[in-house]
Amino acid sequence: MQREYGRRRLLQEIRKAGNIPRIELADLTGISRATVTTITAELLQNGLIEEVPRADDEGDARRGRPRVALKIRGAAHLVVGVKVSHQQLSLVLMDFEGNQLAELETEMDKPVYPPDELASVLAEAVKRLARKAGHAMRDISGVGLGIAGIVEAEQGVIYWSPSLTQRNVEFGRLLSLRLGRPAFVDNDANLVAVAEKSFGLGQDHSDFLVVTIESGVGMGMVINGELYRGTRGCGAEFGHTKVHLDGALCRCGQRGCLEAYVADYALLREAQTLMGFDTRLSSGERVEALLTAAREGDDMAGRVVSRAGRVFALGLANLVNIFDPELIILAGEQMQSDHLYAEEVIEEMRKSIVQVDKAPPEVVVHRWGNLMWARGAAAYALDKVSQLALEGLGENAA
Amino acid sequence: MQREYGRRRLLQEIRKAGNIPRIELADLTGISRATVTTITAELLQNGLIEEVPRADDEGDARRGRPRVALKIRGAAHLVVGVKVSHQQLSLVLMDFEGNQLAELETEMDKPVYPPDELASVLAEAVKRLARKAGHAMRDISGVGLGIAGIVEAEQGVIYWSPSLTQRNVEFGRLLSLRLGRPAFVDNDANLVAVAEKSFGLGQDHSDFLVVTIESGVGMGMVINGELYRGTRGCGAEFGHTKVHLDGALCRCGQRGCLEAYVADYALLREAQTLMGFDTRLSSGERVEALLTAAREGDDMAGRVVSRAGRVFALGLANLVNIFDPELIILAGEQMQSDHLYAEEVIEEMRKSIVQVDKAPPEVVVHRWGNLMWARGAAAYALDKVSQLALEGLGENAA
Repeated sequence: MQREYGRRRLLQEIRKAGNIPRIELADLTGISRATVTTITAELLQNGLIEEVPRADDEGDARRGRPRVALKIRGAAHLVVGVKVSHQQLSLVLMDFEGNQLAELETEMDKPVYPPDELASVLAEAVKRLARKAGHAMRDISGVGLGIAGIVEAEQGVIYWSPSLTQRNVEFGRLLSLRLGRPAFVDNDANLVAVAEKSFGLGQDHSDFLVVTIESGVGMGMVINGELYRGTRGCGAEFGHTKVHLDGALCRCGQRGCLEAYVADYALLREAQTLMGFDTRLSSGERVEALLTAAREGDDMAGRVVSRAGRVFALGLANLVNIFDPELIILAGEQMQSDHLYAEEVIEEMRKSIVQVDKAPPEVVVHRWGNLMWARGAAAYALDKVSQLALEGLGENAA
Repeated sequence: MQREYGRRRLLQEIRKAGNIPRIELADLTGISRATVTTITAELLQNGLIEEVPRADDEGDARRGRPRVALKIRGAAHLVVGVKVSHQQLSLVLMDFEGNQLAELETEMDKPVYPPDELASVLAEAVKRLARKAGHAMRDISGVGLGIAGIVEAEQGVIYWSPSLTQRNVEFGRLLSLRLGRPAFVDNDANLVAVAEKSFGLGQDHSDFLVVTIESGVGMGMVINGELYRGTRGCGAEFGHTKVHLDGALCRCGQRGCLEAYVADYALLREAQTLMGFDTRLSSGERVEALLTAAREGDDMAGRVVSRAGRVFALGLANLVNIFDPELIILAGEQMQSDHLYAEEVIEEMRKSIVQVDKAPPEVVVHRWGNLMWARGAAAYALDKVSQLALEGLGENAA
């Protein structure tokens, strides 16, 4: 048990440091030098880490010891990260060190699938990605999946997702079976937070929030340096926080949810009261037309869009009033969130938080594509595969 | 540095365990037995802990070693916890082991004080409490203070409090000077959360929220077993989360805050539109009259009170949608929060959270008096005094 903790801790620290001498590992973690030596020998023997020359010239060299540091061995494992978007799949292949080896983006036939069918589509895409990099499925140690909806990550259960026809699906298990490899599922916005923490704007922050806008509003929370998922997997449901008693009807069936004011369907519902749309336009094109009209000064379009912005500001202010984070990252690729990520919206948020004589949290907009979401999913898979590898060591030792 | 971590960790574990043998400390913390022996020797020598006979019969006895366990030495330090309420002070005196030695409740002349004057009033009360237990001020190692408002606990700065005439007061420093002893200030609801975690309903929970109702609505968050204060000390401002765009005017100057619907002044503001009050009644008596009328079936009073309940439910639902805690503790003493802590309000909250096929978080009402708030403040002081004592050891060793 204690040994297991030591292994996890040391592997994490080595990953975080990039490369690090044994003695610094001991200093950093408070684990005794003897134990560090034992555990790292074990990790070396099992190929999870490797020795490299030390970057600096000081230290043990003076005492004639070899100048070596430890780093993660990239070849130890391969993982895949997958992001399911609206009719699109994005995948990356990563080695154990976190280097991206290949990527793949592919269209999906439809927006909503029965679970079995989605698992097949995903397995097919993972296979294509692996082949692209000259690997077979058996070379992949784990697959991380980010998907919109309510996900209990621990058990891999998807309570609900806009991409699935069914509720309460043990999708982690289903996908693992289909792949023949371990699969790990989480809410997509959580994995954006993982990505921001691992290699994005959150690397130097211990407490930050990530808000995402796609067809719904998502959120991930990093607290004390760790992703916080809530206790049932139902946390971070920012889009369904209520901003108005008995307010606008939401697709979830309740009234006054943030999404019922800021999501595309909400904008169109309002807009159709005021303006006509060319019936040949898709809903995406209608939203585009509405936003363009607002930008060009159309008064009615402006009223619709500006209320969405004000409600979004109010929702953000609620998050600040509760969490008081160092940083809020507004993440996403789409131009269509420009009206929500605008400076006047952020300013409205600043006015709606509790006013103290201290600067409000920093708010940054981080535009990134679906491949970055997929990298977050891969980072999650790396963490889970590390755990499995260490548990494997435990069994061998027993 | 490393030694300091070990000292803190071991002292915490001994406090948590009540009493515990050295070998179990090593197993529990992963700190080597040799280091546990060294550090506990140091703690014993400095009188922070003491040896007691082991409770059980097993273990090292078989190898002929003495059957001893370690516990916190109660006499090592005395601390005081103080809660400032509306025109009332509540204080407890606690020993280093957490035993309550004396308590004191006293009226204050007025609800709002200049900082200097409040510090004097507090110092006087602490002196009285100490005397009551046969001690002098110099015997007190630290004083913890819980006060309503926006508090940056780390620096002891009160950005704003309903009990103070000024903003941005370095009240921790001011009170320390007045007492001649170290003083530690935090938001009162945070210290209720500390109390629930230390000796209340939260002892076995790692993730829970505490909501308090006095003249305002307070909140404390325990995440991963630790109080979460936010990064500027401005978190957990549940009362000023917005529940309505452009809604009712709040005393903070903004619109749509939860407090603008559920606080006493909000109830009276609504009620006066509909019903007349005897002008001789105080505002507290008016609220009482309103709530009584609602309970007795008065339609207009009922409308006022029921909206407050529905808005409170919506605010709680927002907390659940964001945090997904295991448990929400609705804490407070006053009968006048009965209408907010009612079963129909909790039921409304349950309907307003994201619906999944898993039980919603447990909600419990924990009625307790001001002395329990003061115990939370004392628990905070214990933690800070422990830190100071350990830093003292560090200096001696250097």
